[in-house]
Amino acid sequence: MENKAFIGIDLGGTNMRAALVNTSGSILEQIKVSTEISQGAEQATENLLEMCRRLMERAASGQLQVEAIGMGVAGKIDPQNNVVVFSPNLPAMDNFPLGVRMEEALRIPVTMENDANVYGLGENWVGSAQDLNNWVGLTLGTGVGGALIFNNRLWQGDKLGFSAEVGHLVVEPHGLPCTCGSQGCLETLSSGRALMEGVEEAVKKGKLVGGKLFELWQKDRLTAQEIYFCAKEGDSTSLELFRRMGWALGIAISNMFMLLGIRHAIIGGGVSASWDLFIDPLMKTLQTTNRFLNAEQMTVRKSLLGDDAALLGAARLAWDCQWG
Amino acid sequence: MENKAFIGIDLGGTNMRAALVNTSGSILEQIKVSTEISQGAEQATENLLEMCRRLMERAASGQLQVEAIGMGVAGKIDPQNNVVVFSPNLPAMDNFPLGVRMEEALRIPVTMENDANVYGLGENWVGSAQDLNNWVGLTLGTGVGGALIFNNRLWQGDKLGFSAEVGHLVVEPHGLPCTCGSQGCLETLSSGRALMEGVEEAVKKGKLVGGKLFELWQKDRLTAQEIYFCAKEGDSTSLELFRRMGWALGIAISNMFMLLGIRHAIIGGGVSASWDLFIDPLMKTLQTTNRFLNAEQMTVRKSLLGDDAALLGAARLAWDCQWG
Repeated sequence: MENKAFIGIDLGGTNMRAALVNTSGSILEQIKVSTEISQGAEQATENLLEMCRRLMERAASGQLQVEAIGMGVAGKIDPQNNVVVFSPNLPAMDNFPLGVRMEEALRIPVTMENDANVYGLGENWVGSAQDLNNWVGLTLGTGVGGALIFNNRLWQGDKLGFSAEVGHLVVEPHGLPCTCGSQGCLETLSSGRALMEGVEEAVKKGKLVGGKLFELWQKDRLTAQEIYFCAKEGDSTSLELFRRMGWALGIAISNMFMLLGIRHAIIGGGVSASWDLFIDPLMKTLQTTNRFLNAEQMTVRKSLLGDDAALLGAARLAWDCQWG
Repeated sequence: MENKAFIGIDLGGTNMRAALVNTSGSILEQIKVSTEISQGAEQATENLLEMCRRLMERAASGQLQVEAIGMGVAGKIDPQNNVVVFSPNLPAMDNFPLGVRMEEALRIPVTMENDANVYGLGENWVGSAQDLNNWVGLTLGTGVGGALIFNNRLWQGDKLGFSAEVGHLVVEPHGLPCTCGSQGCLETLSSGRALMEGVEEAVKKGKLVGGKLFELWQKDRLTAQEIYFCAKEGDSTSLELFRRMGWALGIAISNMFMLLGIRHAIIGGGVSASWDLFIDPLMKTLQTTNRFLNAEQMTVRKSLLGDDAALLGAARLAWDCQWG
């Protein structure tokens, strides 16, 4: 296996990154360019191919053979037909046979998956979950994504184009409307968007009428990170939003442990940087809700790999598809 | 395989049943006796052994060899150590090494599992799920049990002694207290006990002051079945309880489909006999909650095997443990 390598790609709405990864899970080289999806799917594919060719040359110069390419894409993927079904952040890619086109051009296998699933594969391989067999992953970003790893493999269910849609687990059936069309989904309580909308709601209700958080809102400069900073300075509206985030995560994780008979969760994604503000209410809720496990049996860990989780996981996806 | 057979046992608080099952999933002979757990675990074990010996003789007379015994037990089981950890219906069995004792006496492998899991194995083998690979099972009885079948096998998670505890998925986080110590579990809304307590609650609140249902309550003759009959006669309190049952099942099943990327559920257990009263609100809730699947993709089926599901599933458990 020493002379084999894989390319992992993380295709997002803003940037696309590609990495040459060896079988030990080390990134040998990585390239990042802006996605510029506005130039169309064809141009984006050309840019991706150019990155892959450069990494394949780099591999060859080190006596490595790129066996396959794995790709994490933000959106709904049809892995069997290698097609991006629907991607809110990459609208030009909808129904585009990205994987097929790349395979034709590069003549090596290309596999695609949802970006949260690929994050799970990365953490499982060389991240927080190296010692675990069964666990659930959550990614807290604008929305909430998820990954299920069973017996050290990515769980894909009936291969319907989605699985581990943790963000759309209903936590409060009579709760806030969700972008998916349902109500009270985890994503309406525990995402970057939930934080932003929570501030908006506080302003509308007249509960937030002044102070730094209000000013940020007024100047349209609100971000999840700014809300975090306000909370750290003691702002009560912000603190309550992170408490709610932790509470909802606790209910959802309890339900997943109860259903699956497992006891480990890993949380990643940009908004997981606010860990210190949501982990206490999360653990408290988890322990009072899940009565089948003792407190010390349940672990909730932070992602170790950050942004590299998706790159490494995409490479691992390519490997798993090659070597089953 | 033609000369091989298995014994499946369904050990409940009231009765224990044992069946000789061939490799086609046919019951060749079955025996039912009352459990009489009040006489102690030793006596119950003796009775179980006597049933097994009779079935083994029956097998021998038909040139069949009993390879192994599988047992479904209402309660928390430690399958690895063959011990009943905790059983509310069989209190004398708590921490009793039932499987170990039976193996010593009969000198063939004995495997135990939770009764809902064993029901899942039965339906998967020769019941409603024969054509499915991935599905979730729910048993509606006094409480709500569950089973997860992934890739045609029983999912046991991290082998913590529980899995598919569907009854303790939180549906309404601020809802009714559950026997498990949490709040708003599915079991508080969709079980036989939930029906009984719902009537009790209606009386307490002065919403139910007369009529057949009130009289049954007054005479302490209320059962889930009687509540069903009242609903069929148009009683509004009863009808509302079955509507609530269906609604909560719809939320829970939607969450499970969303998390697992699957689309099939099977409902069994005694209270599933009230199918006609809860299936419409269930399907309506499922379809409005799960926006990742079209209505026609999602199926919720009724158990086919009734009481025999556990016997057949227990035999299948024995087989699976023997032949991996």
